[in-house]
This record gives sequence, C-alpha cells and structure tokens, in this order.
Amino acid sequence: MTKNVNKNESITSQEENFSQWYTDICLKAGLMDYARAKGFIVYRPYGYAIWELVRNWLDGEFKKTGHHDVYLPLLIPESLMDEEKEHVKGFAPECAVVTIGGDKPLTEKMYVRPTSEVLFCDYFKDIVHSFRDLPVKDNQWCSVVRWEKTTRPFLRGAEFLWQEGHTLHATKEEALDETLGQLKLYERLGREVLAIPFETGKKTEKEKFAGAEATYTVEAIMKDGQALQSGTSHFFGQGFCQHFGIKFLDSNNKQETPWQTSWGVSTRLIGAVIMVHGDDNGLVLPPYVAPIQVEVIPIRFDKDPKVKQAALDLVEALTKEGIRAEADFSDKTPGWKFSEYEMKGVPLRIEVGPRDLAAGNVVLTRRFDGVKQTVALSGAAKAVPTVLKDIHEAMYAKALAYRDSHIHECHTYGELKDVVTTGQGYAKVMWCGDQADEDKVKADVNATSRCLPFDQTPFDDKCAICGKPATKVVLFARAY
Amino acid sequence: MTKNVNKNESITSQEENFSQWYTDICLKAGLMDYARAKGFIVYRPYGYAIWELVRNWLDGEFKKTGHHDVYLPLLIPESLMDEEKEHVKGFAPECAVVTIGGDKPLTEKMYVRPTSEVLFCDYFKDIVHSFRDLPVKDNQWCSVVRWEKTTRPFLRGAEFLWQEGHTLHATKEEALDETLGQLKLYERLGREVLAIPFETGKKTEKEKFAGAEATYTVEAIMKDGQALQSGTSHFFGQGFCQHFGIKFLDSNNKQETPWQTSWGVSTRLIGAVIMVHGDDNGLVLPPYVAPIQVEVIPIRFDKDPKVKQAALDLVEALTKEGIRAEADFSDKTPGWKFSEYEMKGVPLRIEVGPRDLAAGNVVLTRRFDGVKQTVALSGAAKAVPTVLKDIHEAMYAKALAYRDSHIHECHTYGELKDVVTTGQGYAKVMWCGDQADEDKVKADVNATSRCLPFDQTPFDDKCAICGKPATKVVLFARAY
Repeated sequence: MTKNVNKNESITSQEENFSQWYTDICLKAGLMDYARAKGFIVYRPYGYAIWELVRNWLDGEFKKTGHHDVYLPLLIPESLMDEEKEHVKGFAPECAVVTIGGDKPLTEKMYVRPTSEVLFCDYFKDIVHSFRDLPVKDNQWCSVVRWEKTTRPFLRGAEFLWQEGHTLHATKEEALDETLGQLKLYERLGREVLAIPFETGKKTEKEKFAGAEATYTVEAIMKDGQALQSGTSHFFGQGFCQHFGIKFLDSNNKQETPWQTSWGVSTRLIGAVIMVHGDDNGLVLPPYVAPIQVEVIPIRFDKDPKVKQAALDLVEALTKEGIRAEADFSDKTPGWKFSEYEMKGVPLRIEVGPRDLAAGNVVLTRRFDGVKQTVALSGAAKAVPTVLKDIHEAMYAKALAYRDSHIHECHTYGELKDVVTTGQGYAKVMWCGDQADEDKVKADVNATSRCLPFDQTPFDDKCAICGKPATKVVLFARAY
Repeated sequence: MTKNVNKNESITSQEENFSQWYTDICLKAGLMDYARAKGFIVYRPYGYAIWELVRNWLDGEFKKTGHHDVYLPLLIPESLMDEEKEHVKGFAPECAVVTIGGDKPLTEKMYVRPTSEVLFCDYFKDIVHSFRDLPVKDNQWCSVVRWEKTTRPFLRGAEFLWQEGHTLHATKEEALDETLGQLKLYERLGREVLAIPFETGKKTEKEKFAGAEATYTVEAIMKDGQALQSGTSHFFGQGFCQHFGIKFLDSNNKQETPWQTSWGVSTRLIGAVIMVHGDDNGLVLPPYVAPIQVEVIPIRFDKDPKVKQAALDLVEALTKEGIRAEADFSDKTPGWKFSEYEMKGVPLRIEVGPRDLAAGNVVLTRRFDGVKQTVALSGAAKAVPTVLKDIHEAMYAKALAYRDSHIHECHTYGELKDVVTTGQGYAKVMWCGDQADEDKVKADVNATSRCLPFDQTPFDDKCAICGKPATKVVLFARAY
C-alpha cells in the first residue's frame, strides 16, 4: 500500500488565499499545466474533457438551430485587419504578429487571430450575393491568441479555446433575435449544464466590443465576490458589412446591406465552474460537465474477489445507463482515493465493500454537500441518473442563493465602494450614463460596470456616483 | 422557376485537366473558399462537415482504446524547438515565426507549431515520473502551419487541420504495438468509413519523419494515378525522451527512459475522398462521411401539397433511422437539383412525385453508379440504411479494383519510369536500399518511394534501379 497522503491538505484554503486556492486546484486536479511559453498552458485530459462536454452540448444546440461549423485561417494579413478601424484599434495592440515565413521576412506582417470578425467578413463577401444566400449562420471552434500582460489559467491567457458564432441576416430584427437568442442559449448552458445562474444584460458603451453596436453579456459571481464575464453576444448592425462591401440583392432586386452578429464563450467557463462551485477540498463539478460522474471505490477488493466483481459489474451497469463511471482498483488506500476524487470534484462516489455487499447495499456520497445515501446494489445503477439530476439542481439552487445574496442595491458612492471592495459581489446602482463615472469607479476601487440588466426598473432618482439625474440601472463589480 | 442550369457542365472533365477538375469540385461543391492570405483556405460548412464526421469516428475509436484529448500551445519558443536537432532541421525552415507580441519585439522568437512533438515532450517531462504514470496516450485535434511554396486545397496548405496522437510507454514492444495499432486504425478508417483501400507499409530512411526511428504510412492512389500519403504513424524509440530528459522509475525503482510514438491524419483525407471517388459530374461521397446522405427531391410539390407532405414525412422517417437527410423545396427545377446534388456527391437521391405517389412508390438513385431502384414509399426509410451500406461496399470494391490494377511489378528502370510517368500508379520494384537510387528516381521522373510494403516477398534478385543485389520490395509513384 502507498502511504496515505491526504492530497486535499495540499490545497490552500479559499479563506487564506483565494487566488492560490484557484491555482492549486487547476494544477492538482490535473486540469492544466504551465507551458514553456509564458502565459500559455497545456489543457490536460481532465480539463480538456470538461471543455469537450461544454462544446458537445453547445454544438448540438447550434446545429438544432441551423448553424454550421466552419474553419477560417489562423493568420490575418495586416491589410485585412486594417479594414475596420475601431476593431483594429481594439485588437491589434494585443496581438502576436508573424513577420517571418519559410525562413524569409514577409512583405506583409500577419496577425495571429485574436478573434475572427475580419476573416468572416472577407469570406462572407465571397459567398453572399442574394437574399437566397441569407441567413448565413456559421460557428467556429478554435483557439485565439491575445498577448495579455497578466495571465491566469483559463481566465486570461495568451491563448484560449473558444467558439465564435458569426451570422448575417437580411433584416435588423432577425439579427437582433439572433443576438439575444444566443445570449439565451448561454443562459441555458448555465442553468442546464454548468449549474451557474448567469446575470444577463447589455454592456455599457465603454465596455462593449470594438466594432459592435451593442454587446450583451452573461456574468457570473465567483466565491470571492468578483464577477467573471462568461460569454458575450454582439449585435454589429451593418458596420462591418459596410466597411467590407458585403451586399445582397433582395427579392425586389434592390441592393441591401446585411445585418450581422457574433457571439462566443471560451474555456473561461472552466474557470467559472471552479470558482462558483469549488471548496476547500477541491473541485466540485456539476454532473453534466464532469468527465467522471461516478467513481466507484471498492473496499478490500484485494482480499475479496466478490467486491472486485461487484465494482466491475456496477461500472458496467452505470455505463449502460449512459453514466460516465469508473472504478479505482489501484493499490492506494480507500482514504487516499476518497480525497483524490473529492479533489477532482467527481459528483458521486460509490463505495462497495464486503460488509455492504453482504447486506446487498452500496453507499452513495455526493461530492458537493457530502450527503450519504445507502441504496440496494441491485437498483444502484438505475438510481444514479436521478441522483445526478438532484445534485445538479441542488448545486444550481445553492449558486443561485449565493448570487442573489451578492447583488446589493446601493444608493451612495460609499455603499458602492464598500460592496465592491469587500467581496460582497455586485453593487447595483442608478447611473446617469456618463462614462466619466465608470472611469472614476475604475480609478477609485478598480471595479467596472458589468452590465445594464434587462430589468431597468429604477429605484433612485440620482446617479449614485456623481449625483446627476439617473437614467440607467447598472451593476458594478470587481472582475476577472 | 429559376433557369435550369446544369451546374455540372461547369466542372472541367478529369480527362481534360485533372488538376482543374479537382479545384472546380473544391470550389463548386462548396467545400472551401480561398482566403485572403496566400495558401490559406476557408473550410466551408460542407467541407468542414466531412472533417467532423472523420473526426467523430476517429475520436470515438481513440477513446475506446484509452486515449485522451488534450490541447497544447500554438506557439513554440525557439529554445524549445532547438532541443531536438534533427527535428528542428526538418521543420524550422518551413515555419511561420512570431517576432512581435503586444506591440513589442519579442526577446525570443516563437514558431507557430508545424507539429507538436517538442511541446508534448516538454509537457511529458512535467507529468511522467513513475511507471504508474505510463502509458500516456494523448491526442490533439488542432491546426498546424507550414509555409509551403505551392499549395492546393486540402492537399498541401499553409494551414491544415489534423489530429496528432502522442504516446509514451514503459517498453519498446508496447510502443511498437501502439505505432502499428494506430496504423491499423487508419486502415480501418479507409475500409469502413472512407471506402478507400490504403496501401500500408514502412517509409524508407529518406522519407521518414524528422526525428523518428521508423515511420509507417497509409497511401492511397488517386484517379490520375498519383499517390497521396494519407496518414502516418511514427515509432520514435527513445530519442526525443533522451533529448528532453524524460525518465521514469520502474517497479524496481530503477530509472528508465520511456518509448514514444506519434501518429496523425489530416484534412488531406478530404482530398483523398475527392480524388478516389469523384467523377466528371462532381463529388461522390462515401455514405459514412456524407454530410447529407439522402437528398429528397419533391417533384411538382408546388402543384400538389400531398407531394410536399410525403417528402417531409420521408425526411422525418429517414432522420428517425439515423440517416442525415433533407428535402429541397427551393424554386429550382428538378433537373437543376439533380445536377446540384450530384455535384455535391450526395450518395442517394430520392424522387417523390405525384405519379410515384399515386402508385405508392419512390425512386432511389445511387450517386456513385447511377443505379435506380423503385421502392414502396412506406418501406423506403427502413430500406435506406441497407442501401447506403451497399453503396459503401460497392464504392470500396470499385476503389480496390482500381488500386489493384494500379500496382505494377517492374523489373527494369525503364518499366518503372513508364509506370510512374503515364498515370499507371505504383511501380513495385526490388531495390538495393541505397538512397542514391531514390534521389535518381526523383531527379529523373519526379517520383518518390511511397513505402516498403509489409509483404516483402522478393520477386527479383537485383535492384531495378541500379542493378546491385536487391534486398527490399518498394513502391515508387508520383505523389501529391
């Protein structure tokens, strides 16, 4: 037997140092490893598998609504990048730039894509001519590179994985429906898959995407009270299409300009899952994105072959139910295994031991709240889907209660500052809409406007920041 | 009704200009579009969907055999690239190189990955310490960049999509099994999915991968008699591990060096499918990688609502059978639609017209050989899976007969030159093993050794090229 080390003791507590706790989990749960190149990471199997589950769910939904996957080039020639001025201003300074190809200096430098709007526009120009070609509803799964100064695994990196949807429509209404429809899909991803209640709304002018008419966002609140922008959906209007000369003949043979959207989520969502659900014992994965949903721990199986067989049979029965299950027959102690799979956030542990077996039972332990349940071995596999569903719902309810207790209506600037600097989450304030106020909040307490919630019911007359007449409800928070 | 244009007339015939025929299909079947950056392409939905089907099949097989997907960085610092001399010599000259990041010159230049061996080695060094950590069986789906001088869609491009498997093993035997096991998987991909009979064997020293001890290959013969390397599996021995200092403690606490493999296939396979199966009417897709397996063409549906309903019902019934089916209700003529879906290579067309409907029948037309079959509408959906299976088998048999008729045993250099220069496929010759002969063939007739087939039964005493005593059976061909 290997020495019984409680791995969880090696994780810094959230209370002690939330940032170190996060890094500990990323590394020790085997989600990632640092790469040689600064700011780049290796997505290890356990981390990548979470992303695959997110991707498979989203991709299925994209396809149900008539979207198609495509792949566009990694590199953007400078002349193409320059075609949309606001966009290039926003992105070019944080790009990696290729200047050598095949051992020779390039005559034109090329940007490693930080996002693909200009590439899509260049492509759309080739394929859109008539109203019959619309709508175009494309999506791309790829990586993008942004030369960030400070990086943190999954949250902000030199390279991350994401999906970027890009669509063109004949009418403004249809494009707006698409923009908000995808935002709703991201909200459903949170509700149904990640067990994360997203706060949704519109970004302010200051915070919107470079080149967009409007940016909508899904925001989540982490366990340290900071917000994480978890996905965005942009309405571009006709701006990019005009710059790129994308036109179509409508059914009356009149030349029109299409309306455009783009929307994306990234591997940031892994960071959101860690910081919304994780605890001092490690990762806590919501069942639908858990690479392993059930870990079967056989007790004294080396002494009792019946235990080993029962564990194998149980894994087989669970697999037949569509559950991602495995059993650990390694020579580590049960205690070590309990800690290990707790740290890895496996939603459900099933112990199979000689005593339980004699009684025809197994013990189920839920990771997220430690609740134990003894069930008949014969019915265990059939019971698990419901148990996982219950875990998901309970995790969502807990995260929702946390979120709701971390939105504070503030009436004064002092209240705002207190909320955002003491880990209390969002400061919800009435605001005049002046960008100078956002700059002031940023300068004073390093917080930013996260969104203008869809519910704009006013609760005050004057701007909490500058005292001028207020016109908008806005959420401020410190953010990743 | 739109004017009836037979789109197929716009495709150059194979006889007239095979290369132009290929390009016509790539563009006109909507597989790809040229991107602004030279040598880069857009993978359009119909082309990307073929790749997705290949990927999904392969990924399922990888996972069945215990492989995990991971994602490693896009960029390789120069110092890391330099660690394996033979490898850097082979790849660095054809790389795109990043020299600017975040608006500042980098202190160390970075290569856009042309392949990821050194990245994997750098990562493996972090995670492999004990025999308990072995085997490591990782796979990555990504794009790679190679600064090719002449490019052609899917076959040779500045950027292509691929998978690269990278594994480490405790013993040489296990690593060799892995290398050949993955080669067999690629052979099965051809046999069971792409309807392509691959020629398999070992690469010569000249043609093997930079840094490998042995490279195995799957080769396919195109309709112009040229070969296409369609996938490779490499046995690295311990070379990379030694260079990178990757070690493990075996069960006796002795320090050992792992044995390594890597293997990959790319979007080249789309090119193979086009050139193995395509004809003068366009693409001919094998059913299992056809994004649309059945196109239902309703005849006079605008006059007869029963036809429209029958077509819709048929698509629904087909979908329930797990078939990728759609119906075209656009205002084009049936003749236009016939041509269009022929060009797009849809394996099966089903016509639903008023006359057939009155008789309770529909007409099935197979794309690859034009064979028509009238079946009862009521049983059509249930019949289609078998029809598609039959099409797959018939396409494979046809490709196999073609392949077999394009391997020629040559006893003289004259015969070899005649075979490879007149589109007859592979020249199978006895060879002394001297690399100078390969150089000579390359210089004289621009052909290369494709592989040393596993069946090395000699059929001559002397080398067909130089006359020295022959020790090896080898296939030469012109190749893409």
